[in-house]
Amino acid sequence: MTSLPDDPRQALMLLSSIVEPGDGELDDLLGEVGPVAAVERIWSGDVPERLGRITGATVACTPNPAGRAADLVSATEHAGARVLVPGDPDWPEQLRDLLLVCDADEPHLRPPRCLWVKGRGSLASVCRRSVAIVGARVASEYGEHLADDLAADLSEAGWTIVSGGALGIDRAAHLGAIARGGPTVSVVASGVEQPYPAANRSMFDLVVECGLLVSEWPPGASPMRHRFLTRNRVIAALAAGTVVVEAGVRSGARNTARHAAELGRVLMFTPGPVTSSHSVGVHQLAREPWEARLVTRAEEVIEDLTGIAGPMATPPPSPRRPFDSLTEIEARLVEALPRGYVVEDVRLAAAAGVPVPKAAEALEKLRSDGWVELLEGRWRLAR
Amino acid sequence: MTSLPDDPRQALMLLSSIVEPGDGELDDLLGEVGPVAAVERIWSGDVPERLGRITGATVACTPNPAGRAADLVSATEHAGARVLVPGDPDWPEQLRDLLLVCDADEPHLRPPRCLWVKGRGSLASVCRRSVAIVGARVASEYGEHLADDLAADLSEAGWTIVSGGALGIDRAAHLGAIARGGPTVSVVASGVEQPYPAANRSMFDLVVECGLLVSEWPPGASPMRHRFLTRNRVIAALAAGTVVVEAGVRSGARNTARHAAELGRVLMFTPGPVTSSHSVGVHQLAREPWEARLVTRAEEVIEDLTGIAGPMATPPPSPRRPFDSLTEIEARLVEALPRGYVVEDVRLAAAAGVPVPKAAEALEKLRSDGWVELLEGRWRLAR
Repeated sequence: MTSLPDDPRQALMLLSSIVEPGDGELDDLLGEVGPVAAVERIWSGDVPERLGRITGATVACTPNPAGRAADLVSATEHAGARVLVPGDPDWPEQLRDLLLVCDADEPHLRPPRCLWVKGRGSLASVCRRSVAIVGARVASEYGEHLADDLAADLSEAGWTIVSGGALGIDRAAHLGAIARGGPTVSVVASGVEQPYPAANRSMFDLVVECGLLVSEWPPGASPMRHRFLTRNRVIAALAAGTVVVEAGVRSGARNTARHAAELGRVLMFTPGPVTSSHSVGVHQLAREPWEARLVTRAEEVIEDLTGIAGPMATPPPSPRRPFDSLTEIEARLVEALPRGYVVEDVRLAAAAGVPVPKAAEALEKLRSDGWVELLEGRWRLAR
Repeated sequence: MTSLPDDPRQALMLLSSIVEPGDGELDDLLGEVGPVAAVERIWSGDVPERLGRITGATVACTPNPAGRAADLVSATEHAGARVLVPGDPDWPEQLRDLLLVCDADEPHLRPPRCLWVKGRGSLASVCRRSVAIVGARVASEYGEHLADDLAADLSEAGWTIVSGGALGIDRAAHLGAIARGGPTVSVVASGVEQPYPAANRSMFDLVVECGLLVSEWPPGASPMRHRFLTRNRVIAALAAGTVVVEAGVRSGARNTARHAAELGRVLMFTPGPVTSSHSVGVHQLAREPWEARLVTRAEEVIEDLTGIAGPMATPPPSPRRPFDSLTEIEARLVEALPRGYVVEDVRLAAAAGVPVPKAAEALEKLRSDGWVELLEGRWRLAR
């Protein structure tokens, strides 16, 4: 007889290993009977036809589901990870917002049902004040520099950086946060024991040291193409806002951006030269009806996230020009004085559109301030 | 006895030479008694105190206003220019929109009362389908290249380029239009016989050959500082939309942009690197509550101006990837096949979350398309 797991958490882990996240039929079944009975129904074939087809192959080659669940528990321990399920104190409640956007056309947008987590701290606490920085894997030096800077400054201001652990912009964002000692959360599309890509292995080690590595898939899961797209909704939902730094025409970052907008999160992007193929995707984003905000600095990101233009969010100082110190009448007189000419005060007043007595008064002031000189009863600009 | 001009057009020319555009009191007087009587009132001192102060210096040194008006007529003829006043067939009616935005705080936003025009064609016709391209005088190579390109492509699509004739972005925009033989309109802040800056003289000659040089000020007027700001409202009002290409923190282009937005014209900007001081002003613009649209190409400008995504306004072609030709099931199977491994079909189906019969069918299709190979009953990715 088939041996089934009797622990709900183990049942959810098992289900996560055989049905991709966001399956509406499985979620309905879970809502109806709970995880333990759902596993029982699946192994007995007592499920809707579609769910039966999806799980059939696994059921056929897994005669001992309890054993497979136990294997997942050991693999999780072995990976140094832990499992979170909805209702746990560390479960980030904002993931429930995904329920607002998923529908029959996009069932894969449903909230995750199980998260593998590896690293420091509570996922819920770490993400309470968080912002996602995402972008193209193939990024320009400009883009990576920008992502690194933004992440570092946002970290310093107390914001957790969420990203996807990919090469390019994601990597720069994680490292920018790590460089300032800020926590960072990397949501990956493979098992947490082998985060993809392997080229980022030492970065993932730092992520685990300073923050959290997160996945909806169990240890052993490989980063299949469709999983990246599914994963993106978690990044968008975890963070209060998403900044897209660079994106080509087809970048997955645009997908994350759409989720963020649909979730009512703040969607932001950094512009780049219109001549750069690396920025084509962000510029397209700006033209979508998603009200994406253009940001150039961490201060602006914070302003958009909080609605508060803090002391960090003041525009860069504008160079003060000498003209600024003049009254309008004084400025008109100075402008009306052709460089290299001497002009009588009556003519100068007429050219400047200023009454003669006012002009005389202002010209005296301008003379004492060193703007103009009197030369045989006529005025000229001081050298 | 003082000799006064009896021709309304000459009276308006004379008034334009002594009172700056946008003076509410003069406009009220003109509305009440017309230009000829307004001149009479001014020379007899029978005007509100403020207007009296403004005109006093000129009245004092101009005993013969009719002679001065006649001089303006000769100067206009000598400059090869002509004068337009409201009601003329060539007068661009869209300038009336300025009445909607001027108020007590910003009287200088009132419509012009007289325009000096030099060049080819009817100002009203040439501006019927026009877009302004403006930006910083101190521009980057990137910005000038972009302005030139945009203007050239918009010209080719039948749009007249309006700008301010300044160095930098304005110059690049005019020259881009001229290079495609398109008409271009340069609205300057000095007399049309000596458009500012002199360094653009040969460009202004081309503007006059291909389009129109326009000024609110009579021949002899010098480009005073406040006139540039006053002039900007005319650029914004003439064109259906304004594109700001580059702007520093203090660029006058932002002033034109604000006018365009307040006039209900389409306001657009081209982004640049956030690290470029030349783009700081446009990026600030994007964050103002003016609904400025980000544009990267002429097609997008046209889309924003017309609301029509024409054949020119399609996104750049995205590189077609082989994956696009696969069904979802096929793509899942290919993704689930680790490179360099061979896998049995039951395991592969489970890994891909695809029912076994479907997987078998899809794998046969993938084999015939050259994606996968059968090796001793197991599958691997084709090299």
